[in-house]
Amino acid sequence: MLVVMQEGATEPQIQAVIDRLVSLGFTVHRSTGVRHTVLGGVGPVEDVEPADFEVMEGVKECHRIVSPYKLASRHFRPGGTVVKVGDVEIGGVRVVIMAGPCSVENEDQINRTAEAVARAGAAILRGGAFKPRTSPYSFQGLGEKGLRMLREAADRHGLKVVTEVMDHEQIPMFADYADILQVGARNMQNYNLLRRLGGLRKPVLLKRGPAATIEELLLSAEYILTGGNYDVILCERGIRTFESYTRNTMDISAIPVVKKLSHLPIVADPSHGTGRRDKVLPMARAAVAAGADGLLVEVHCDPDHALSDGAQSLWPEQFAELMGQLRIIAPAVGRKV
Amino acid sequence: MLVVMQEGATEPQIQAVIDRLVSLGFTVHRSTGVRHTVLGGVGPVEDVEPADFEVMEGVKECHRIVSPYKLASRHFRPGGTVVKVGDVEIGGVRVVIMAGPCSVENEDQINRTAEAVARAGAAILRGGAFKPRTSPYSFQGLGEKGLRMLREAADRHGLKVVTEVMDHEQIPMFADYADILQVGARNMQNYNLLRRLGGLRKPVLLKRGPAATIEELLLSAEYILTGGNYDVILCERGIRTFESYTRNTMDISAIPVVKKLSHLPIVADPSHGTGRRDKVLPMARAAVAAGADGLLVEVHCDPDHALSDGAQSLWPEQFAELMGQLRIIAPAVGRKV
Amino acid sequence: MLVVMQEGATEPQIQAVIDRLVSLGFTVHRSTGVRHTVLGGVGPVEDVEPADFEVMEGVKECHRIVSPYKLASRHFRPGGTVVKVGDVEIGGVRVVIMAGPCSVENEDQINRTAEAVARAGAAILRGGAFKPRTSPYSFQGLGEKGLRMLREAADRHGLKVVTEVMDHEQIPMFADYADILQVGARNMQNYNLLRRLGGLRKPVLLKRGPAATIEELLLSAEYILTGGNYDVILCERGIRTFESYTRNTMDISAIPVVKKLSHLPIVADPSHGTGRRDKVLPMARAAVAAGADGLLVEVHCDPDHALSDGAQSLWPEQFAELMGQLRIIAPAVGRKV
Amino acid sequence: MLVVMQEGATEPQIQAVIDRLVSLGFTVHRSTGVRHTVLGGVGPVEDVEPADFEVMEGVKECHRIVSPYKLASRHFRPGGTVVKVGDVEIGGVRVVIMAGPCSVENEDQINRTAEAVARAGAAILRGGAFKPRTSPYSFQGLGEKGLRMLREAADRHGLKVVTEVMDHEQIPMFADYADILQVGARNMQNYNLLRRLGGLRKPVLLKRGPAATIEELLLSAEYILTGGNYDVILCERGIRTFESYTRNTMDISAIPVVKKLSHLPIVADPSHGTGRRDKVLPMARAAVAAGADGLLVEVHCDPDHALSDGAQSLWPEQFAELMGQLRIIAPAVGRKV
Repeated sequence: MLVVMQEGATEPQIQAVIDRLVSLGFTVHRSTGVRHTVLGGVGPVEDVEPADFEVMEGVKECHRIVSPYKLASRHFRPGGTVVKVGDVEIGGVRVVIMAGPCSVENEDQINRTAEAVARAGAAILRGGAFKPRTSPYSFQGLGEKGLRMLREAADRHGLKVVTEVMDHEQIPMFADYADILQVGARNMQNYNLLRRLGGLRKPVLLKRGPAATIEELLLSAEYILTGGNYDVILCERGIRTFESYTRNTMDISAIPVVKKLSHLPIVADPSHGTGRRDKVLPMARAAVAAGADGLLVEVHCDPDHALSDGAQSLWPEQFAELMGQLRIIAPAVGRKV
Repeated sequence: MLVVMQEGATEPQIQAVIDRLVSLGFTVHRSTGVRHTVLGGVGPVEDVEPADFEVMEGVKECHRIVSPYKLASRHFRPGGTVVKVGDVEIGGVRVVIMAGPCSVENEDQINRTAEAVARAGAAILRGGAFKPRTSPYSFQGLGEKGLRMLREAADRHGLKVVTEVMDHEQIPMFADYADILQVGARNMQNYNLLRRLGGLRKPVLLKRGPAATIEELLLSAEYILTGGNYDVILCERGIRTFESYTRNTMDISAIPVVKKLSHLPIVADPSHGTGRRDKVLPMARAAVAAGADGLLVEVHCDPDHALSDGAQSLWPEQFAELMGQLRIIAPAVGRKV
Repeated sequence: MLVVMQEGATEPQIQAVIDRLVSLGFTVHRSTGVRHTVLGGVGPVEDVEPADFEVMEGVKECHRIVSPYKLASRHFRPGGTVVKVGDVEIGGVRVVIMAGPCSVENEDQINRTAEAVARAGAAILRGGAFKPRTSPYSFQGLGEKGLRMLREAADRHGLKVVTEVMDHEQIPMFADYADILQVGARNMQNYNLLRRLGGLRKPVLLKRGPAATIEELLLSAEYILTGGNYDVILCERGIRTFESYTRNTMDISAIPVVKKLSHLPIVADPSHGTGRRDKVLPMARAAVAAGADGLLVEVHCDPDHALSDGAQSLWPEQFAELMGQLRIIAPAVGRKV
Repeated sequence: MLVVMQEGATEPQIQAVIDRLVSLGFTVHRSTGVRHTVLGGVGPVEDVEPADFEVMEGVKECHRIVSPYKLASRHFRPGGTVVKVGDVEIGGVRVVIMAGPCSVENEDQINRTAEAVARAGAAILRGGAFKPRTSPYSFQGLGEKGLRMLREAADRHGLKVVTEVMDHEQIPMFADYADILQVGARNMQNYNLLRRLGGLRKPVLLKRGPAATIEELLLSAEYILTGGNYDVILCERGIRTFESYTRNTMDISAIPVVKKLSHLPIVADPSHGTGRRDKVLPMARAAVAAGADGLLVEVHCDPDHALSDGAQSLWPEQFAELMGQLRIIAPAVGRKV
C-alpha cells in the first residue's frame, strides 16, 4: 500500500495514516520528499481498500501495490494455461472456432447449422437453450429440450458443446449436456454462480461484462479459480461506450492486455461485439490478428428467420469465407486455424 | 416499425423489406420522398429487432415506434405509483431517507447506527447481510444472522428494513426479515431473480446497473411488473464513465428522465454513486434538488473500522447535518423531508 | 515517481529502472517487500511520463506523485479565488447566474431576452456571435455585429457580458465587447487559444470538454494561469457517456471534486449538459445544491423560433421560476442567489 | 423528419407538430397506428434539430431521415475515393504505412528514423514540429525548424511527409513542407481550421476526437469537403472509455463502419490508440485485418530517450517485424502492404 500525502500535510495527519497502517498489520516505510511525504505499507494484509486512506485528512492518493487477483495472474503460471476439451485445446497453437446459432430453435435448425460449421472447420458448437433477454416479451429459449438437441447435433458432427448457464441451480443439468459452461456478460459478477462453477470439473467460458474493466474480469475468474477449477476461458465481447452505431465497442486491445496480465486463454465474440452481420467478419479477423486464442461466432442456417439475434448471425457461406480468411491471417501470429 | 431506405435503394430492395414486414404481420405504409423511401409498419407485433432490418440490403436505419416496456411506462399509470411500506410512502410528498451501514457487522454496530439514523430522521434502515464483492477475498457478510440483527435493530428504533437479496433461493428467507428487497446493480439483469420477485408481494428496490441505459432499467422493472408485483422502486447509483476520480459518475439527470418515462418512484444512492464520504453530501443534496423520491445513504457508527465501504460511509454527525440541509432544499421541489 | 516492480522482477530489471531514474535527475529510494520491490524517485523533475517506465521490462506500474498542474491546484491558493467582474463576484457568497440565448439573432431578440433575465435576477448576459456548429450547414452566428448587439443589450439592462471566443485572432475584438471570454468545450485543448488568453487581463470561462477528465480540465486552466491570467472560471457542461437519452451526462460530482482539487470557481451549464428544456430546471437546482458558484443557462424570449439550441432554451417564465427555486436552495449550502 | 407521437397524444398536440413542420417548409404525411400517430415530414429543409420537436408536448421521439452529411457519404461517390500523394495512393489496393517519431527532435534522430522506416517499407514519414501537449510544461516541438528537418529527411529517403497543423495561421507555412496536413484529435472540431483546409489543394488527414461519434467525424470531414478539398483521409486513433489500462480504447469496428457510410479512406493509429509499445503490434495487425487503408505508427530510433511519447514508439526492429506480419495478413482482405 502506497499512501501519498498532500503538499503541506501536517505531522498529525501523517501520523494518523501511519497509525492506521500499523493497526492493520503493515510495516511502514516513510519517505519525505521535497513536496510530498510517501508512506509505504508492507505486510501480509491484502484486502484493504485504497479509498479508506484516500478519505483521510491530508492524503492525496493511495495505490495498492499487490494485484487483487492472484490465481488469475500471469505470475501464477508464466507458461500459460491450455484448456483441454477432449482433443480440442484452447490456448494452444490452434485458434479454436466455436460457432452456432444464438438459440437452439428446433432439431432441423441446429443440425443444419452444426453440419455447416463443422464442414467449415469449427471445433465447438455453440447454442443457447436458456436465454437471458433484455425484454420479458422476447423468446426465452427451449430449456432442457434445447440442450439435448444441441448435444445430439454436436455428437452427430464431431463437435464439442459450449452453452450458457444462467443460474447455479442449472449446473448439474448442464454438466450432462455441455463440454464448456458459458457465463454470460450479464452474469459476470453473479458470485453465487461463479463460486459453484469453481467446484465443477468442467471448463468455464467467462464473458466480460459490458461495463467491466479487465481487472474486474480477472477478479471474477478468481472466484472460479479459488474453487479449484483452473479451466477458465475468458471472452471479450464488447464494452459499452458512447458510440452507438455498433451495439457495443469491441475492445480488441483487451486481448493482448489479458495475455500479459493473466495465464488464462482469451477468445473473442465478434457477434455480440458488433451486433451486425457485416461487421462480424472484419472484427473476427481483427481478433485473430491481435492474438485471440479462439472465436465465438453466431452462425445460423437461416438468419432471416432466427428467433433471436438474426441480424448478427452469419450465413453458412459467410462463415466458410471467414474461415478461409483466418487461415491466411493466423500464421502472422504463429498460429493456425 | 419505421424503416428508412438508403438514397438510391432499388425497387427489389424496397420490396424485400415490405415482404418481410408483411410476413411478420405488419400493415405497411410506403412514403416516397425526394431522397429516401420510408416504410412504416403498423401491427400487433412487438418483439421485432430493428437490427434485423438494418442489415438488409438498401436499408439506412430502422426505428421501433412502440416502447419495449409497457407496464413500467408513465402512460400505464399517469398519476404515478406510491409504494407503501407500513406508514412510509415512497413516491409521495415526503422524501424518504433510507440509511445504515454497508454491511451488518455485529449487534452493537447495527444498533448504534440504527439509533443514530432514526434520531436524525431516517425512515428505513439499510444494511447488507449477503454481500456481492468484486474480490473473493473480501468480507462476504454475516448471512441470516445479519438479517436477524438488522430486523431487531430496525424494530427497536421504529424503522423499516431494506436489504439486498443476491439469489432467488434466498427470497423466502428474506421475506421474513425485510420490508423491501433490494436488487443490486450487478443483478439488474439477473432475470431469474427478477421474475421470482415478480411473484412476491413485497416492494422491490431495483438498482440501475453501471452500464445500463435508462431503457434497460425500465425493462428490468418490467420483468418484476409482469409477475404482478407493482411495488417497484428504482434507484440511480452511478454509471461507469471515463472519469475515474469518483468510483462512478452519478447520473442525476436520470431522475427527471425516469419521472417522465415511468410512473415508478426513483431514489438515489450517493454513497455508491461517488465512493467518497466527502462527495456524498453534495450529491445527496443534488439528488433531492433534482426531484428524487428518496435516498439510500451509507452511515456507520464508526466508519474507520467498517468491514466494507468505510470510505463512503458517513459519520452519524455528517448524516444529521445532511438531514438539516435536505430540510431546506426539499420545499424548492414541493416536498418535505 | 513511484515504480512498482512485478513479482519476480530480476535484479538487472530493477537496476535498469534505477539507472533511468537517476539519469533523469531523481534520487532513488528502494524498498523491498514480500512480493514487490518499489522504487521511489524524488527530484526536481516534473515532466516525466509514467508510461515511459511502465513499458520497461519487469515493471508492474508507475505512479506520478506530484500533480501535473501547480497554479491551478488548491494548494497554490488555499483560500480560493474570487473572480471579479465589476461588482459581480464569482466564487463568493452569491451564486452568480449567467443567462441568455444560445445565439444573438437580432436586436429585438437579445433585448427582450436581456430584459427578462435581468428582471429575474441574472447578473451576466450570455449569447453567442460566433458559433462552433457540428454541421457546416447550420447557422454560424452574426459575427461582430452580434457582439455589438449583445454589449448594448447588456448595458441597457445593467448586465455583464460573457461570450464564446473561437479563435485567438478574435481576442482583441472580443476584448472590446465582452467582460468574460468563454472557451467552448470543443476548444478546451486548443492550446494556442489558451496561451493567448493567458496574456489577457480579462476573466476567462473555460468549459470542460465532453471527453476531458477533471485533471485535463485543470491542465488546460494551467495553460492560462501560466500566462499570468489568474481569473479563470471553470464550467461543467456534461460529459459523453453511453446514455443517449440526454445529450450529455452532466457530471454534477465534478463540482465538489474541483472545489477540493483547485482554488478556481466552477459554474455549471445545465442547458448543454442536458439538451432538453424540461431537464434544465432539475439539473440547475442540482448544481447549486452541490455547491456550484454559478450557472450558465440558455434562455430565449421565443425558443420555438430560435436559430440554434431552441430545445434546450428556457422560456422567460421558466427562468423566473427557476430563480425562485434557487433562492430556496442556496441557503442550504451557505449561499444566496 | 419522422415525429412519433406519444400514446394518447391529443389532437391539438398533433396539430401543433404538423403546423411547425409545415411552417418549416415540410410536406407532412400523417399515419395513425393502433398506439401511436407518426408524422413524416418531407421537404427541401435540412438543418432542423430533432430535439426541437422532442421537447414539444405529446411527442415521443423524432428521427432525422436524411444524413446530416452529404459530400462525405458513400452515396456521393459509391466507388470510393483514392487520395494520391505523388505515386502513393491511399484507398487503393496497397495498405499505406506512415511511420516516424512523435516529435522531430534533431537532424540525426529524424534521419536515422526515416532511414529505418523507409527500409522496412513505409511510404510516408510522420513527425511533429508543433505539438499540442496536455501540460504546458511538456516539450512543445521545434517549430518550423522541425518541419524543415522532416522534409529533408523524407526527401533523402524517398518518403512523403505527413505532419500535424495546429492552427489555420500555420497553413501556408505547412504547405511548403508537408504532403499531407494532419488535423489532430483535439482539433477535430476546430471549425476555423477545417474550413481553411477546405480551401487548400493538399490532402488532409483528419483524426477522430476521443469523444467523437463516427457521425461527428464525418461532419467534420464535411467542413473540409464543402470547401472543395476532396482529399480527406480519416483516422481512427482510439476513443475514451472507462477502461484505463490502455490510454484509449481503439474502436477497430469504426473501420468497417466508415467504409460503409463514407467513400473516404480510413487509416488507423495504433500508437495513440493504445499508448503502449507492446500493444501497438497487435492493434496494427488488427486494423489491417479489419480493412484499414493504412496505418500511422510511431517509430523512434531511440525510444528510451524520446522527448515525447517514448512509451508508445516502436524500436526500428519492431517496426520491421510488424511489416513482415502485415505482409502475411493483407492478402486475407485482398490487399498488399
